[in-house]
Amino acid sequence: MTGFTDLGYARVDTDRESRQGLPEVVYGPGKRPEEITGIVTELLARGTGPVLVTRVDPEVAERVRVPGGDYDETARLLVWRPAADRGFRVCVATAGTSDWPVAAEAEAVASAIGLRTRVIRDVGVAGIHRLMAVREDLREADAVIVVAGMEGALASAVGGLVSCPVIAVPTSTGYGASLEGVTALLAMLTSCAAGLTVVNIDSGFSAAMAAHRLAAVARR
Amino acid sequence: MTGFTDLGYARVDTDRESRQGLPEVVYGPGKRPEEITGIVTELLARGTGPVLVTRVDPEVAERVRVPGGDYDETARLLVWRPAADRGFRVCVATAGTSDWPVAAEAEAVASAIGLRTRVIRDVGVAGIHRLMAVREDLREADAVIVVAGMEGALASAVGGLVSCPVIAVPTSTGYGASLEGVTALLAMLTSCAAGLTVVNIDSGFSAAMAAHRLAAVARR
Amino acid sequence: MTGFTDLGYARVDTDRESRQGLPEVVYGPGKRPEEITGIVTELLARGTGPVLVTRVDPEVAERVRVPGGDYDETARLLVWRPAADRGFRVCVATAGTSDWPVAAEAEAVASAIGLRTRVIRDVGVAGIHRLMAVREDLREADAVIVVAGMEGALASAVGGLVSCPVIAVPTSTGYGASLEGVTALLAMLTSCAAGLTVVNIDSGFSAAMAAHRLAAVARR
Amino acid sequence: MTGFTDLGYARVDTDRESRQGLPEVVYGPGKRPEEITGIVTELLARGTGPVLVTRVDPEVAERVRVPGGDYDETARLLVWRPAADRGFRVCVATAGTSDWPVAAEAEAVASAIGLRTRVIRDVGVAGIHRLMAVREDLREADAVIVVAGMEGALASAVGGLVSCPVIAVPTSTGYGASLEGVTALLAMLTSCAAGLTVVNIDSGFSAAMAAHRLAAVARR
Amino acid sequence: MTGFTDLGYARVDTDRESRQGLPEVVYGPGKRPEEITGIVTELLARGTGPVLVTRVDPEVAERVRVPGGDYDETARLLVWRPAADRGFRVCVATAGTSDWPVAAEAEAVASAIGLRTRVIRDVGVAGIHRLMAVREDLREADAVIVVAGMEGALASAVGGLVSCPVIAVPTSTGYGASLEGVTALLAMLTSCAAGLTVVNIDSGFSAAMAAHRLAAVARR
Amino acid sequence: MTGFTDLGYARVDTDRESRQGLPEVVYGPGKRPEEITGIVTELLARGTGPVLVTRVDPEVAERVRVPGGDYDETARLLVWRPAADRGFRVCVATAGTSDWPVAAEAEAVASAIGLRTRVIRDVGVAGIHRLMAVREDLREADAVIVVAGMEGALASAVGGLVSCPVIAVPTSTGYGASLEGVTALLAMLTSCAAGLTVVNIDSGFSAAMAAHRLAAVARR
Amino acid sequence: MTGFTDLGYARVDTDRESRQGLPEVVYGPGKRPEEITGIVTELLARGTGPVLVTRVDPEVAERVRVPGGDYDETARLLVWRPAADRGFRVCVATAGTSDWPVAAEAEAVASAIGLRTRVIRDVGVAGIHRLMAVREDLREADAVIVVAGMEGALASAVGGLVSCPVIAVPTSTGYGASLEGVTALLAMLTSCAAGLTVVNIDSGFSAAMAAHRLAAVARR
Amino acid sequence: MTGFTDLGYARVDTDRESRQGLPEVVYGPGKRPEEITGIVTELLARGTGPVLVTRVDPEVAERVRVPGGDYDETARLLVWRPAADRGFRVCVATAGTSDWPVAAEAEAVASAIGLRTRVIRDVGVAGIHRLMAVREDLREADAVIVVAGMEGALASAVGGLVSCPVIAVPTSTGYGASLEGVTALLAMLTSCAAGLTVVNIDSGFSAAMAAHRLAAVARR
Repeated sequence: MTGFTDLGYARVDTDRESRQGLPEVVYGPGKRPEEITGIVTELLARGTGPVLVTRVDPEVAERVRVPGGDYDETARLLVWRPAADRGFRVCVATAGTSDWPVAAEAEAVASAIGLRTRVIRDVGVAGIHRLMAVREDLREADAVIVVAGMEGALASAVGGLVSCPVIAVPTSTGYGASLEGVTALLAMLTSCAAGLTVVNIDSGFSAAMAAHRLAAVARR
Repeated sequence: MTGFTDLGYARVDTDRESRQGLPEVVYGPGKRPEEITGIVTELLARGTGPVLVTRVDPEVAERVRVPGGDYDETARLLVWRPAADRGFRVCVATAGTSDWPVAAEAEAVASAIGLRTRVIRDVGVAGIHRLMAVREDLREADAVIVVAGMEGALASAVGGLVSCPVIAVPTSTGYGASLEGVTALLAMLTSCAAGLTVVNIDSGFSAAMAAHRLAAVARR
Repeated sequence: MTGFTDLGYARVDTDRESRQGLPEVVYGPGKRPEEITGIVTELLARGTGPVLVTRVDPEVAERVRVPGGDYDETARLLVWRPAADRGFRVCVATAGTSDWPVAAEAEAVASAIGLRTRVIRDVGVAGIHRLMAVREDLREADAVIVVAGMEGALASAVGGLVSCPVIAVPTSTGYGASLEGVTALLAMLTSCAAGLTVVNIDSGFSAAMAAHRLAAVARR
Repeated sequence: MTGFTDLGYARVDTDRESRQGLPEVVYGPGKRPEEITGIVTELLARGTGPVLVTRVDPEVAERVRVPGGDYDETARLLVWRPAADRGFRVCVATAGTSDWPVAAEAEAVASAIGLRTRVIRDVGVAGIHRLMAVREDLREADAVIVVAGMEGALASAVGGLVSCPVIAVPTSTGYGASLEGVTALLAMLTSCAAGLTVVNIDSGFSAAMAAHRLAAVARR
Repeated sequence: MTGFTDLGYARVDTDRESRQGLPEVVYGPGKRPEEITGIVTELLARGTGPVLVTRVDPEVAERVRVPGGDYDETARLLVWRPAADRGFRVCVATAGTSDWPVAAEAEAVASAIGLRTRVIRDVGVAGIHRLMAVREDLREADAVIVVAGMEGALASAVGGLVSCPVIAVPTSTGYGASLEGVTALLAMLTSCAAGLTVVNIDSGFSAAMAAHRLAAVARR
Repeated sequence: MTGFTDLGYARVDTDRESRQGLPEVVYGPGKRPEEITGIVTELLARGTGPVLVTRVDPEVAERVRVPGGDYDETARLLVWRPAADRGFRVCVATAGTSDWPVAAEAEAVASAIGLRTRVIRDVGVAGIHRLMAVREDLREADAVIVVAGMEGALASAVGGLVSCPVIAVPTSTGYGASLEGVTALLAMLTSCAAGLTVVNIDSGFSAAMAAHRLAAVARR
Repeated sequence: MTGFTDLGYARVDTDRESRQGLPEVVYGPGKRPEEITGIVTELLARGTGPVLVTRVDPEVAERVRVPGGDYDETARLLVWRPAADRGFRVCVATAGTSDWPVAAEAEAVASAIGLRTRVIRDVGVAGIHRLMAVREDLREADAVIVVAGMEGALASAVGGLVSCPVIAVPTSTGYGASLEGVTALLAMLTSCAAGLTVVNIDSGFSAAMAAHRLAAVARR
Repeated sequence: MTGFTDLGYARVDTDRESRQGLPEVVYGPGKRPEEITGIVTELLARGTGPVLVTRVDPEVAERVRVPGGDYDETARLLVWRPAADRGFRVCVATAGTSDWPVAAEAEAVASAIGLRTRVIRDVGVAGIHRLMAVREDLREADAVIVVAGMEGALASAVGGLVSCPVIAVPTSTGYGASLEGVTALLAMLTSCAAGLTVVNIDSGFSAAMAAHRLAAVARR
């Protein structure tokens, strides 16, 4: 019992579901459709949880030949065997319309792994009354994922309003001094609101997986 | 009822305890002892929770005149009215001996706000059997705070071993290409272990506050 | 009539007062007390407006031998012949207590050149009700100078609340990912609030001079 | 009365016109033509001021179905209901021919919101007599927007010549060490000419909006 | 005897084989097929060792007219006269599937110059039992080339397990904070495992050539 | 007599020939063929020296309608009225074959303005005997332009061999840590060979213009 | 048998000697003299090889109370039980006099672990005949450690002359554009000489440890 | 005849005077007074030209025991045997008073090696009439060294006014976005004035040595 399957082009971590409550999520870029097919087949055979492939373009998705999968084009996500609702409430809030693709990935991954998601769009701080109006919705969540580009100030504002965990996702929205998301990333890391945590630029996936870890401890 | 007190040199957020379950934590740098004295006095009077001042040098600490405070020199932390144990278990793991001051801040803040802390020191990946030996200790925690400088690889290794939330704290330990902690920060943000979250360089405080948010949702 | 005086160590721009409504402001660093004395004497003799020297340390200030000067230690500013009130209202708002030295420079320079200043301290977005409480005060100003370090989110929040010009001053307050003010600078430049303008890190002086230009056009 | 309209894909800030004298300007990138159509329709219905959409490519522009709009291809700007002349004079000066698209955005936005614009092209400091020849034209303006790439020295030169507000717009013109506009940005922020303010790289829009704020205070 | 041949467009270093035990390896980018043809022909005529051209796209490769060459499309490598087995064992280990093209270049170059290669794929630290399972395979090698992107932690883990030389190759796999391989590069340079060495981002070629130097000294 | 012609889209500096011995050189990018046509026509009419347009793509070049021009596709240069030989000898040396396009621009511009050029290709320091073999050729030049990418070490080596001015041109040749020429730029600026000067990345044009200035003083 | 000793403040890797042929080397910074004393005592008791502590300042060194140790002030190295000569020849070459402290660390560590060292100082490429004069000395070595700051060109030059492994150590020698060693680091990573490897800035220690790994494989 | 003297701690390039018309200039930092003494003695004995040591602090300078030397404290320069006037006119122009120490080094080195220097101080572009007033003085020079910090715009302005070589020296004058001279460096490299060349930040020495190379070719 090695805990993995060596497919030659990949070493599938079949032990991860018992170790972390979720099968290995497959990172799509750089893998050919046949390789994705092989890995997904193996994961479905060796476990019982949801199987996901992230960042898959439509032309690749349609060439992955495993029955029962669903493809979400905005989130660029392939899902087999989505999990049942685990009752953990995650609110995904975006600063602007352009942040939606990243938020969509966070939402789709979180849903697929059994989290109860709610989306609140376009509440950036330039019109702060929009944020104030949804304050109570935010407070009902068990965790808030804030998705924002440019200066990322929404994360600080939300962080000051709620007491639950806040996972900040910087996006590459913007131009010039936004430095493809680096500015939002740095701003979120230095937020004056205490206890925010941050994930990689444009990584809706990482935020959803952080929420998965939260849900795990909340159930204990 | 404005929810704050204007002391002239500071606008104390007296509403924060009801909003986030903890009084405002005072950031020490740039404040004179008299100012710290005034703010702490106000926070003690207007709330019931623990009052903390971070990053205080010894010579400032001894000039803060408010009875009942304790000073932790390694953590550079002043504490009044520490909270009772809330039962939430936080493990603070460090990669090397030089990371200790940052870990000490995380540990001291977490303890002061009522989290149950455990410290595991010096389990960097260069001798990975040391990490394997404490694997079960890590798995008993409700959250793990990983404190590491240089290349910060410990965060990825821990992230792959446990299923609970992992809060990674990059430190400025190292020289040259470690870029005063920026390398560890970037490495932790791009970890291959899914669902890690990251806080600012050397910010043991932020990690403890993130754990506070986790504890809040875990109790729900 | 060349429009300047060549003192050997400096070429004093004696034409600036007629060109820009204010004598040349002297940048202190790198100048010896005797040089400052010489330049100030020349500026007082050749014009009628206020004469200022910025970023002067106390030990230098006391060695500048020109009668009638005032020294502000927090702002590190030397002033002769301060201007009368020009009626233009400038509000200087800070995010945190640590931003005060930069705000003090902005306030002192603005006052010395005849602007009517008001200071609002410690209204960072982590407790946004503090900002909401001073909303009307901000709206009464002809211009707002926002002084903030860390992630600088206060600039965006103020930018969305007022219609007058907002001059954002990033400060080097913070550590780690705040990169000595670069993060706040980038964040302010990419603010989602339209029409903010930004000056150099820690430059209270530049913000006050930008306000001087505003006052000039407001009087037209 | 919430002050906004929730269209699902966007939360339109219908309160902004009363708060800042201008309806929300729509940022085009990342929005589909139908979404732009919906937002513009809402803004036209809920306010009386000019409605603008920035950074719109021609193929998107022609698919936005709202009567009465004008499209400026160089400025990539859509405008409905342009404002009447408010009498505030803005001069847009460029360093070189390649800076024109950014200057065109500044000019078109400023005109659409009622500012009186004048353009002076190609007065970079390599042939400084060209700048000297237009000195008086610059001095007649209530504000000057300087648009320059490469080393951005035109901003300093103009700043020394005029007494009115100068808004510097760095452009991404150039190659190699111009770092896609970052060099011009940094140079403008550290200008030896006092009181310049700076906006994001290539953001003619931000400069025009800063001029809008200036016009607001000039009218008081 | 100048030790080189001047072809006009190139000065072929015909002395290198005697100096370093291997003919000059041709860097493909920026060279036209006719130029590659000319250089390869010269190298084949003037020496006896293997002749390689790196980073050649398929459409260029098929236009290089020199008999006896082999083209490896994944490695983008052209090879003539591959060397016989020199007995030096090089293990190429990758962190993830996406790192394969860089590892393929390392493997193909190493094989072509006579090193005995073995590939171990997909042993990233997120599932560290996969690495532990191949520990003995790694220890059998005379040198290990570790190919990893993102945070590059595999290099540290391998460095702690084996006693032989470890050559770390950072890859541009990843997005956002991975900064196109810079993060992996910095992380590998600051590894807590002593005695690792590092080559340029994505340079499987450099790693193989470093192994060539190792093999040279091992034979002494 | 203003010294310039205002064409609306450009302000042609017709005074430059008398001021600097050469008409303004036109920077091609961002200019339409009609604009280039207009500017070139004006420059030909108002002066007597060579007229050049740099960085012109073939499809633009063929749409510029001014008789008597020559187009060099490798150098991407348009030239009218090239200057006669001024006797000043410039040697253009490249480190590798990939640096040729930049060197070609330097060579073509230098020739067009009357400098006597000689090209020495592919003498990078990895085979330093190639450089030693051309040492005397380098020493015959009045100035050496060194064109090199990657680590740019050729500039230091040449700088130590010759006594004449050395103008170093970093190129964007390379990948990964070469950072699109920034590494070569920084390396050349910090060369241990005294008195090197450096121009912008990939700017063969700047190097040739620097040589023009040298030729001017050499003739005095 | 855990393979480590938990001293509370440190977890000493007592297994490393059997795993890598050398006891763990202690990194001095951040450790108190008592801690160093404890760790060294443990390492001496549990193994038989040389025990080293790096980067120790004199005032710390004299407070470490373990008999039999030697302190090298230039190298800032403490050594107990130095190894016997293993016959592996390492040449340490420096570009300039200012690089000596880093080279001294490389030399002292290498000697202490049994390598046969030779030092060649001050052979920077600005006077390349100095390097040519020692060419044969370099070729006698089994490995060359090149220590250079500024533009680090010596590494490329040496790399082209010898066939053995070359370990390049960038130093922080220089100012301005040398960026505290980052320029030398980047230059060495992009060297045109094939098969160089690079370690962290100023890390003579890492270079010596890389040589240790080379010696291990050379003996096989 | 090796062309150098090996002093153990340094390998003095005694051939440089014949190769480049000037003995090796000694870089002071990192050398002990005894070492400087030894090197200077050797250089004086083996050549006839001026011997210089740069960047020497006063306390080191007074411990260098070689008769006949002069020490310039502002320039931090030690000189023996200064050269006679070679007739080549170098003008050193500074933007502000704070740039003086760097300009002083350029001036002192240039004088010591026989160039005819003239200094023009404090002609920054914020008061451009000051620059216009010295235009003819600048035009009389054979080369102009422009010394400027902050945004470095003086280099572009001078570059447009004169036809001779312009050597731009960025200084670390300024704060915040001036990034310790990097901003001025980048700005000078991307100047819109054609044919400027640039040397390292704060390197008055490099500028003087570049002028030495110019003088060499001017005499031919």
